[in-house]
Amino acid sequence: MAEIKFEIRESLGTLSESAKGWNKELNLVSWNNRDPKYDIREWDPQHEKMGKGITLSKEELKALKDILNSVEL
Amino acid sequence: MAEIKFEIRESLGTLSESAKGWNKELNLVSWNNRDPKYDIREWDPQHEKMGKGITLSKEELKALKDILNSVEL
Repeated sequence: MAEIKFEIRESLGTLSESAKGWNKELNLVSWNNRDPKYDIREWDPQHEKMGKGITLSKEELKALKDILNSVEL
Repeated sequence: MAEIKFEIRESLGTLSESAKGWNKELNLVSWNNRDPKYDIREWDPQHEKMGKGITLSKEELKALKDILNSVEL
Protein backbone atom coordinates (compact mmCIF):
# COMPACT_ATOMS: atom_id res chain seq x y z
CA MET A 1 0.00 0.00 0.00
CA ALA A 2 1.26 3.46 -0.80
CA GLU A 3 2.47 5.54 2.08
CA ILE A 4 1.68 9.16 2.76
CA LYS A 5 4.34 11.01 4.68
CA PHE A 6 3.15 13.94 6.68
CA GLU A 7 4.40 16.23 9.39
CA ILE A 8 2.24 18.62 11.38
CA ARG A 9 4.40 21.74 11.51
CA GLU A 10 2.01 23.89 13.48
CA SER A 11 -1.27 23.28 15.31
CA LEU A 12 -3.45 26.36 14.98
CA GLY A 13 -6.59 25.21 16.74
CA THR A 14 -9.43 22.75 17.19
CA LEU A 15 -12.82 23.31 15.55
CA SER A 16 -14.68 20.48 17.27
CA GLU A 17 -14.34 17.10 18.96
CA SER A 18 -16.38 14.11 17.87
CA ALA A 19 -17.97 11.50 20.13
CA LYS A 20 -15.22 9.00 19.31
CA GLY A 21 -12.51 11.48 20.33
CA TRP A 22 -11.40 12.62 16.89
CA ASN A 23 -10.75 16.34 16.52
CA LYS A 24 -11.46 18.55 13.53
CA GLU A 25 -8.38 20.77 13.45
CA LEU A 26 -6.69 23.57 11.56
CA ASN A 27 -3.01 22.71 11.12
CA LEU A 28 -0.07 23.63 8.96
CA VAL A 29 0.91 20.27 7.43
CA SER A 30 3.72 19.19 5.15
CA TRP A 31 2.61 16.31 2.89
CA ASN A 32 5.33 14.09 1.36
CA ASN A 33 8.04 16.57 2.35
CA ARG A 34 6.52 19.33 0.24
CA ASP A 35 6.03 22.90 1.40
CA PRO A 36 3.49 22.96 4.24
CA LYS A 37 -0.12 23.93 3.53
CA TYR A 38 -2.95 24.90 5.81
CA ASP A 39 -5.23 21.96 6.38
CA ILE A 40 -8.70 21.40 7.88
CA ARG A 41 -9.21 17.73 8.73
CA GLU A 42 -10.26 15.24 11.40
CA TRP A 43 -7.53 13.47 13.36
CA ASP A 44 -7.47 10.75 15.97
CA PRO A 45 -6.14 11.83 19.38
CA GLN A 46 -2.61 10.56 18.57
CA HIS A 47 -2.52 12.28 15.16
CA GLU A 48 -1.76 8.92 13.55
CA LYS A 49 -5.01 8.45 11.62
CA MET A 50 -6.73 11.12 9.59
CA GLY A 51 -10.07 11.69 7.90
CA LYS A 52 -10.86 13.50 4.70
CA GLY A 53 -10.12 17.17 4.57
CA ILE A 54 -8.99 20.07 2.47
CA THR A 55 -5.75 21.95 2.12
CA LEU A 56 -5.67 25.72 1.72
CA SER A 57 -2.95 28.15 0.71
CA LYS A 58 -2.17 31.11 2.94
CA GLU A 59 -3.99 33.36 0.46
CA GLU A 60 -7.09 31.14 0.56
CA LEU A 61 -7.03 31.11 4.36
CA LYS A 62 -6.78 34.92 4.44
CA ALA A 63 -9.72 35.15 2.02
CA LEU A 64 -11.68 32.76 4.24
CA LYS A 65 -10.91 34.90 7.28
CA ASP A 66 -12.18 38.01 5.49
CA ILE A 67 -15.37 36.20 4.45
CA LEU A 68 -16.03 34.93 7.98
CA ASN A 69 -15.53 38.43 9.39
CA SER A 70 -17.97 39.92 6.87
CA VAL A 71 -20.94 37.58 7.40
CA GLU A 72 -23.32 37.03 10.29
CA LEU A 73 -22.84 33.58 11.82
CA MET B 1 -24.87 5.61 -10.75
CA ALA B 2 -26.10 7.08 -7.50
CA GLU B 3 -27.22 10.64 -7.58
CA ILE B 4 -26.36 13.35 -5.10
CA LYS B 5 -28.97 16.01 -4.75
CA PHE B 6 -27.69 19.36 -3.61
CA GLU B 7 -28.89 22.93 -3.40
CA ILE B 8 -26.67 25.92 -2.71
CA ARG B 9 -28.78 27.90 -0.29
CA GLU B 10 -26.33 30.75 0.25
CA SER B 11 -23.04 31.79 -1.37
CA LEU B 12 -20.84 33.34 1.29
CA GLY B 13 -17.71 34.02 -0.72
CA THR B 14 -14.89 32.85 -2.99
CA LEU B 15 -11.51 31.81 -1.57
CA SER B 16 -9.67 31.45 -4.88
CA GLU B 17 -10.05 30.79 -8.59
CA SER B 18 -8.07 28.06 -10.34
CA ALA B 19 -6.51 28.29 -13.80
CA LYS B 20 -9.31 26.18 -15.28
CA GLY B 21 -11.94 28.53 -13.90
CA TRP B 22 -13.09 26.49 -10.92
CA ASN B 23 -13.68 28.45 -7.71
CA LYS B 24 -12.97 27.37 -4.15
CA GLU B 25 -16.01 28.69 -2.31
CA LEU B 26 -17.68 28.88 1.07
CA ASN B 27 -21.37 28.09 0.69
CA LEU B 28 -24.32 26.95 2.73
CA VAL B 29 -25.36 23.73 0.98
CA SER B 30 -28.21 21.30 1.50
CA TRP B 31 -27.19 17.75 0.55
CA ASN B 32 -29.94 15.24 -0.29
CA ASN B 33 -32.60 17.56 1.14
CA ARG B 34 -31.04 17.50 4.60
CA ASP B 35 -30.47 20.57 6.75
CA PRO B 36 -27.92 22.83 5.06
CA LYS B 37 -24.29 22.78 6.24
CA TYR B 38 -21.44 25.16 5.61
CA ASP B 39 -19.19 23.79 2.92
CA ILE B 40 -15.73 24.62 1.53
CA ARG B 41 -15.29 23.08 -1.90
CA GLU B 42 -14.24 23.70 -5.51
CA TRP B 43 -16.98 24.23 -8.08
CA ASP B 44 -17.04 24.67 -11.81
CA PRO B 45 -18.33 28.08 -13.01
CA GLN B 46 -21.87 26.73 -13.53
CA HIS B 47 -21.98 25.04 -10.10
CA GLU B 48 -22.80 21.76 -11.80
CA LYS B 49 -19.58 19.88 -11.04
CA MET B 50 -17.85 19.83 -7.68
CA GLY B 51 -14.53 18.79 -6.24
CA LYS B 52 -13.71 17.29 -2.86
CA GLY B 53 -14.42 19.42 0.14
CA ILE B 54 -15.52 19.49 3.73
CA THR B 55 -18.73 20.38 5.48
CA LEU B 56 -18.74 22.33 8.72
CA SER B 57 -21.42 23.04 11.29
CA LYS B 58 -22.14 26.62 12.32
CA GLU B 59 -20.32 25.97 15.60
CA GLU B 60 -17.25 24.67 13.73
CA LEU B 61 -17.28 27.68 11.43
CA LYS B 62 -17.46 30.03 14.43
CA ALA B 63 -14.54 28.21 16.05
CA LEU B 64 -12.60 28.51 12.78
CA LYS B 65 -13.31 32.23 12.67
CA ASP B 66 -12.01 32.65 16.23
CA ILE B 67 -8.85 30.68 15.39
CA LEU B 68 -8.19 32.74 12.25
CA ASN B 69 -8.62 35.98 14.20
CA SER B 70 -6.18 34.82 16.88
CA VAL B 71 -3.24 33.79 14.67
CA GLU B 72 -0.84 35.72 12.48
CA LEU B 73 -1.37 34.91 8.80
